[in-house]
Amino acid sequence: MYLTQALKRSVQINAAGPATSYRGRERSWAQVQQRVACLAGALHGLGHESGERAAILALNCDRYFEFYYGVAWAGSVFVPINTRLAPPEVEFWLNDSGSRVLFIDDQFLPTLDALRGRLDNVEHIVYVGDGETPDGLLDYEALLARSEPVADAERGYEDLAGLFYTGGTTGRSKGVMLSHRNLVMNIFNVLPTLQFQAGMRWLHAAPMFHIADGLATFGVTAVAGLHTFIPSFSPDAALSAIQEHRVTHTLLVPTMVNMVVNSPNVADYDLSSLTGLTYGASPMPQSVIERAMEVLPDCGFTHAYGQTECAPLVTATGAEFHMLKGPHAGRFKSAGRAVPGVELKIANASGRELPRGEIGEICSRGPHVMQGYWQRPDLTAEAIKDGWMHSGDAAYMDEDGFVYIVDRVKDMIISGEENVYSVEVENALYQHDAVVECAVIGTPDDTWGESVHAVVRLHDGKNTSADELISHCRQLIAGFKCPRSISFRDKPMPLSGAGKILKPELREPFWEGQDKSVN
Amino acid sequence: MYLTQALKRSVQINAAGPATSYRGRERSWAQVQQRVACLAGALHGLGHESGERAAILALNCDRYFEFYYGVAWAGSVFVPINTRLAPPEVEFWLNDSGSRVLFIDDQFLPTLDALRGRLDNVEHIVYVGDGETPDGLLDYEALLARSEPVADAERGYEDLAGLFYTGGTTGRSKGVMLSHRNLVMNIFNVLPTLQFQAGMRWLHAAPMFHIADGLATFGVTAVAGLHTFIPSFSPDAALSAIQEHRVTHTLLVPTMVNMVVNSPNVADYDLSSLTGLTYGASPMPQSVIERAMEVLPDCGFTHAYGQTECAPLVTATGAEFHMLKGPHAGRFKSAGRAVPGVELKIANASGRELPRGEIGEICSRGPHVMQGYWQRPDLTAEAIKDGWMHSGDAAYMDEDGFVYIVDRVKDMIISGEENVYSVEVENALYQHDAVVECAVIGTPDDTWGESVHAVVRLHDGKNTSADELISHCRQLIAGFKCPRSISFRDKPMPLSGAGKILKPELREPFWEGQDKSVN
Repeated sequence: MYLTQALKRSVQINAAGPATSYRGRERSWAQVQQRVACLAGALHGLGHESGERAAILALNCDRYFEFYYGVAWAGSVFVPINTRLAPPEVEFWLNDSGSRVLFIDDQFLPTLDALRGRLDNVEHIVYVGDGETPDGLLDYEALLARSEPVADAERGYEDLAGLFYTGGTTGRSKGVMLSHRNLVMNIFNVLPTLQFQAGMRWLHAAPMFHIADGLATFGVTAVAGLHTFIPSFSPDAALSAIQEHRVTHTLLVPTMVNMVVNSPNVADYDLSSLTGLTYGASPMPQSVIERAMEVLPDCGFTHAYGQTECAPLVTATGAEFHMLKGPHAGRFKSAGRAVPGVELKIANASGRELPRGEIGEICSRGPHVMQGYWQRPDLTAEAIKDGWMHSGDAAYMDEDGFVYIVDRVKDMIISGEENVYSVEVENALYQHDAVVECAVIGTPDDTWGESVHAVVRLHDGKNTSADELISHCRQLIAGFKCPRSISFRDKPMPLSGAGKILKPELREPFWEGQDKSVN
Repeated sequence: MYLTQALKRSVQINAAGPATSYRGRERSWAQVQQRVACLAGALHGLGHESGERAAILALNCDRYFEFYYGVAWAGSVFVPINTRLAPPEVEFWLNDSGSRVLFIDDQFLPTLDALRGRLDNVEHIVYVGDGETPDGLLDYEALLARSEPVADAERGYEDLAGLFYTGGTTGRSKGVMLSHRNLVMNIFNVLPTLQFQAGMRWLHAAPMFHIADGLATFGVTAVAGLHTFIPSFSPDAALSAIQEHRVTHTLLVPTMVNMVVNSPNVADYDLSSLTGLTYGASPMPQSVIERAMEVLPDCGFTHAYGQTECAPLVTATGAEFHMLKGPHAGRFKSAGRAVPGVELKIANASGRELPRGEIGEICSRGPHVMQGYWQRPDLTAEAIKDGWMHSGDAAYMDEDGFVYIVDRVKDMIISGEENVYSVEVENALYQHDAVVECAVIGTPDDTWGESVHAVVRLHDGKNTSADELISHCRQLIAGFKCPRSISFRDKPMPLSGAGKILKPELREPFWEGQDKSVN
């Protein structure tokens, strides 16, 4: 029950079979294992000791895959870095994790330049690109060539395997500590849920630093399938890779699905090999999934929900629920049901499970739950209570165990004894034809603790009053959920990098000097 | 990662769906969980404490299923008893396990009578049959009716879940200690390997006391499938249950497969629902599997190999290898390849992995390996070395990871530096047309340690000499493998209950007073 066991099993059952394919470099499982063992030897040669961290900042490629397994084989801890970070954030991740080795490709050499002299621990930088190795960096292939393969460190279940950082748009990033057991148990949740099987061919289209694609890094290896890669996502790169490699399975976030299925060239590609497409991480617009089901009629879609802290899979809605008609119509809008190894509940603030239909926080328990946040026992204790990981997502569960996410818990407003979910209020406001954009937040209230407040932007040329909007809401939702006050703004809402409205920024002026956390 | 998590998940996602069906008693997952919680309450009421053992001696039925989960829910340890044992063997299992509660049905009331006054620990006997409850026994349904449901004990990964006894034909029985983790990890090996999935309908046709069928007791529950039962196997009972319940999956031992597919009535039944048939536990004659593939053309066959100590699944050969033609023809004769969570090697006596094609012992490592033998640390230390479970089966692995079992390790003869596998020598002898039955054993030899000796029975009216048989073997196998001596016998060979030749009995006269174990 350690990560490299799957690699060794792939060699045992499929030594000559294809493991990785990238830019014409095709390698068998036996070859990849040999390179992984040499990479581990190289890390040892660089003085890397058991449990030390090694980071990577690179686009997707076959060497990224070897990095994960080479670090695990060496008994070290991998730290994949978000490729969208600004240099100060990269600096924080590298310093916080104490990484002594950094793997990097061409794309991030400017970041490296910006960070010269600011990295506390990094002693060795390994260049994994395909160009000429820059001065002062170690060449990946040369390093492998001069290193002897070493024996697998065979780490234990509870040993730390990786640090996956989350957050960063608001508040400080946290390193999620995933053990070998966490990542292996995720494999076993993935195999039956996403129908991974021998002979499958995966496209790493989503970024490999993210645990969402990580489920395939480890899961596809567990069935000795093929890994193919595109450095970064574009609809044409994805489409042509699917055609070229006869890709059977991939994972895309909804915006990528949208770009692929609405690409003007989509009909030019042979996508008949694709039998499994997993999506998740953000809400999927109905029109996009309907278009996807039309463009890929023989492909099974799975809506997956998870979080880095859960390694990551928690719930899923499989192909059998991607129906536009019949008793299961619309079920793909839910985040799905608990995967086999995950114990799931919707709980109130004190952790008690709520009846079906009532909104509370998604909590899960089991061997998939992270060890904690790296060097942040305070945050760990907040997130994991009695073994239950608190997701921060507010949702309800229907009679058949399907989970419908309605909000982030921190965007929930507690007014009197009642919980108000901002999304529900926003949905009511959006049904008024003057509203182009809105955000519902809690503002301080001496009597009720919090009061429901809406920030609203109107369509150009449309007009309405706070009173009219509140009356409109009263016709749609319970009185206690309706905004008590409304402020209008002309500017668009402040957005995060992921396109979400930054509510902390909206809340800030109301809460100045008060003790409600605005993160 | 405890057994009852799967039961609770089935209720979460499929509360009203069918869980068990037996003799017209149909129960939903919600109903079964309620009964399980009441059974646990009943056990607590009987003074049963966490970690105590509760045994069952009964034919297959829905209550047998409830027994497994009820005992786990109570935090206790289940002890399923082999239904083919003689009373003194039942006595040993009950006393050795220290079981304080025994569940029993009509079939075994005579056994109970025979054991009156000889059971050291049994304080309560619960009658699970459908007749009138005998005097002095507790009625199962009455017990449930008067017990309050209790909360799940939520046992930990490393807590003991069950004692499954093995052996008994030769030597003393041993209680195999399987933890919650062992049995849960087996579920995760089973799901992708045997294609268990939502909506499946299992027939418990093989005896439920055996861990082979146990993989479905726990595995089918993990996908919220339906459990159906026949009390004991007969071809007509199996065939009509498959038709009646539209059974999709079952497990049969080869003799059962033979009886089913060669039943004169097989064509009268609608078997179209059956998509997965798993077989194993003893060698499958080629003619039987070929006939099975003919009778059930749309069914996927899986040859599974395992052992109680491995909870039980170790290797499997799936439907894609059940081909009579093409590159994979004949691969179903192998025991298959390691399932995803199992680390596997063929090792020599010192535990070193052997090159492909060389014969050694099947060893496996991982979270599926038992905790040990109950109160027998000596035997545990012999069986598990450096975490590797030694199966006692001699086999070789081909280039693609398929394992071919050739012998029991204890039937291997070590002559000089060479290992001789009795099966290989026997196969050579059987090719002589005078030989009707033979067994090859090691006999003491001052020079070589052991010498290859054959015990041979000839066809009536046929004649040959030891020299002629040895010359015959020399044409087929290497010189060191050929018998040095041959003894002829007129009587049939002594057989075990399972129909295997009892080699210890044949070895005994040769080894009297010497230190070779004859077990």
